Amino acid sequence: MLIGLHLGNGYGSQPGAWRMPGVDPKSYVNFDVIVKQAQAAERGKLHFLFLPDGPSVSADVETQPPGVNMEVMMTLAAIARETKRIGLVATGSTTFNEPYNLAKQFKALDVMSHGRAGWNAVTSSSEEVAAFYGRNIPSSEDRYGRAHEMVQLMQALWGSWGKDAWVHNQESGEFTKKGQVRPINLQGQFVSSSGPLYIPPSEQGQPVIVHAGGSPNAHELAGRFANVVIGSAFTIADARAQRAAFRAAAARYGRDPDELKFFAGIMPTIAKDKRTALDRRIQLTKEHFPQRVAYLERMLGIPLDSTRLNDPLSPAQLKAARPSRYDPRSSHALTIAQEGWSLRDILAHGVIDYHPVTVGPGTEAADHMQKWFEAGAVDGFWILPDVNVDGIDAFVEEVVPILQARGLFHQEYEGKTLRENLGVPYQYGVDPRV
Amino acid sequence: MLIGLHLGNGYGSQPGAWRMPGVDPKSYVNFDVIVKQAQAAERGKLHFLFLPDGPSVSADVETQPPGVNMEVMMTLAAIARETKRIGLVATGSTTFNEPYNLAKQFKALDVMSHGRAGWNAVTSSSEEVAAFYGRNIPSSEDRYGRAHEMVQLMQALWGSWGKDAWVHNQESGEFTKKGQVRPINLQGQFVSSSGPLYIPPSEQGQPVIVHAGGSPNAHELAGRFANVVIGSAFTIADARAQRAAFRAAAARYGRDPDELKFFAGIMPTIAKDKRTALDRRIQLTKEHFPQRVAYLERMLGIPLDSTRLNDPLSPAQLKAARPSRYDPRSSHALTIAQEGWSLRDILAHGVIDYHPVTVGPGTEAADHMQKWFEAGAVDGFWILPDVNVDGIDAFVEEVVPILQARGLFHQEYEGKTLRENLGVPYQYGVDPRV
Repeated sequence: MLIGLHLGNGYGSQPGAWRMPGVDPKSYVNFDVIVKQAQAAERGKLHFLFLPDGPSVSADVETQPPGVNMEVMMTLAAIARETKRIGLVATGSTTFNEPYNLAKQFKALDVMSHGRAGWNAVTSSSEEVAAFYGRNIPSSEDRYGRAHEMVQLMQALWGSWGKDAWVHNQESGEFTKKGQVRPINLQGQFVSSSGPLYIPPSEQGQPVIVHAGGSPNAHELAGRFANVVIGSAFTIADARAQRAAFRAAAARYGRDPDELKFFAGIMPTIAKDKRTALDRRIQLTKEHFPQRVAYLERMLGIPLDSTRLNDPLSPAQLKAARPSRYDPRSSHALTIAQEGWSLRDILAHGVIDYHPVTVGPGTEAADHMQKWFEAGAVDGFWILPDVNVDGIDAFVEEVVPILQARGLFHQEYEGKTLRENLGVPYQYGVDPRV
Repeated sequence: MLIGLHLGNGYGSQPGAWRMPGVDPKSYVNFDVIVKQAQAAERGKLHFLFLPDGPSVSADVETQPPGVNMEVMMTLAAIARETKRIGLVATGSTTFNEPYNLAKQFKALDVMSHGRAGWNAVTSSSEEVAAFYGRNIPSSEDRYGRAHEMVQLMQALWGSWGKDAWVHNQESGEFTKKGQVRPINLQGQFVSSSGPLYIPPSEQGQPVIVHAGGSPNAHELAGRFANVVIGSAFTIADARAQRAAFRAAAARYGRDPDELKFFAGIMPTIAKDKRTALDRRIQLTKEHFPQRVAYLERMLGIPLDSTRLNDPLSPAQLKAARPSRYDPRSSHALTIAQEGWSLRDILAHGVIDYHPVTVGPGTEAADHMQKWFEAGAVDGFWILPDVNVDGIDAFVEEVVPILQARGLFHQEYEGKTLRENLGVPYQYGVDPRV
């Protein structure tokens, strides 16, 4: 089982994370804090850190931190120097970056981290982000057209030095082998570059390609180029179907489907017992309860009273409840309601969140992960801690040892590079198979 | 007197630097080496590191390292974490960057370094660089038009949070003050952005604007926006005239000329005596002697024999020599020749190099710097060591103490931010005066 960690904005994935006791309210800009979180994840032998970027950066900045890290590449450059083994994955928009600049930065990260970089190549689809760049969002066709060209162009730039070109022989004065640093001269419909890029191979050749998304376009892009998919699924059946779709796409491009690893998200709240964990999530999310009660009404198709958070649903309510077909989380919400929890505790179970939530001691998260993994739904998980400052430590100390004891998770990093640790092939330059 | 250090490609400014004893031939990608050089400069209380980027990256990569650092922003992010006081200046092309991305990176560097960042805002003018971006070089008018807009737009983005907007009050739940994180909605002819940028002020407000160049366009751009000019001059008279032109431009924009600091380059080779220093430069540059003899012929207007490097110029040659009016270095070359040095040693004096060269013990560099400084030719210097690995240490140990003893150079950093150390005003957002 592979595991990545969502580092995010430095506070945690829950809206109240930045206000929790022990959290530095300046974590967003405090690199001591951020690096410490990265080191904690590495202590747990997690495969990589994941720093998304791009859409939904603003949220409501008057009451909430931005949803993503301030500057993902600069942050990973700092982390690269202060960690040894953990992979470093960041999002770089294929829509709003100069390919030469982005190629240079990810390759530099790969070199400075000794082969631990991954590029989450995703298109930008939000008009808010487009406006940062003084533009409008291109059509989906153009966005994915550019994305395919960006990956090809960047991989070509990454391979623009012959694999053994850099001899740096002080005796003979030969810095690179004659004729082996070459222009790439790629001219696409959306992007082009002469190259070369003046960076030699890293220990893993070049960064791992990552993709996040679930649409048919995502299947094509990831199936063609990616080794990692950062996915999102609420049920085993959904995850299994998504994983199969990505694997089928990889096969269509002549690749071994096992080279493409599908990750689902999980949001664990870890505490000594379920009650303590639920109370922690109440503290983290209670300001959102009024609108979540309203949303839960639609998920279950019944009226609910947001002034009676202490009460469980009545037998009549439970009988009338029907999970909405429009929200894949609805069945789980009903299951929790049927267990007799109060309305407050139903919400505290995280029945309305961006990924499946587990609440309780480490076994809760471990059991969830084992079940999904053994069902063939995923190759691994990306963990979104509720609060980074203690949630990462809790995962490392309470969940990782269980997974290791069950033989599901490695005891030590397999190798030194991200590719070795993920079990995906070395690659340098454009993959000759695609 | 202000002093910056050219960090460059990690080897040094001389073509043979990468082959010198004690030099790691992989310095170009070895961040342990690069960080150590930065720390050495900080030990000498140097005001800033300077990492140029852009043109002339390729040189002849079969025998020479690229002329610039692999990735200047990622490198400075790493250095920011491992130094405390030294300023961090890098070039960011105003021609081939998305302004939102560049604004984000320099502001992040400023925040993570606690107010030590500087942006060298220069246009790209090389067709080779343009081809990396799949473009042609725009006209000078368009390049400088875009440059002015880039600086304004980036400064507006840097100021898009109210100066005291970030309250991050955990008790009240107020993350930023209501209405104080605002779009900028700037629409120029070349660049535009809605903003805002999701980064609060740094300790110095925002990065220092630096410019490099000497044309009338450079005077305008720097006079309007910059606090530092990275200049190039071979004589005191030339430096003084350049400095005056920049100061006059600042005054035209309603600024105090003292806010704009003019730096000239100096390339010191430091050794226990002149002979040892000359021999060091011979080792570093001898492969270039044949073409330099040919060039020296044109500088002095006389034929020279490249097979007789051991001989000084004959009385007849010296009598016939006339310094070329087309190369400002020619008079100095003739002066050295008249001192009776061999042809080899004339070249070893660095009479043909990118900046004035000093050769000898620390007093040589210190005397040069004092003379220029006291003549009002410069506010400071940027140092281009011949070989970084020992050249930085030599400058710090042999030249800095002399300058300090003469009362020319500070004993300690004046403050914590680059602006404090340079003696230039705090700025946040767009300067209201320009």
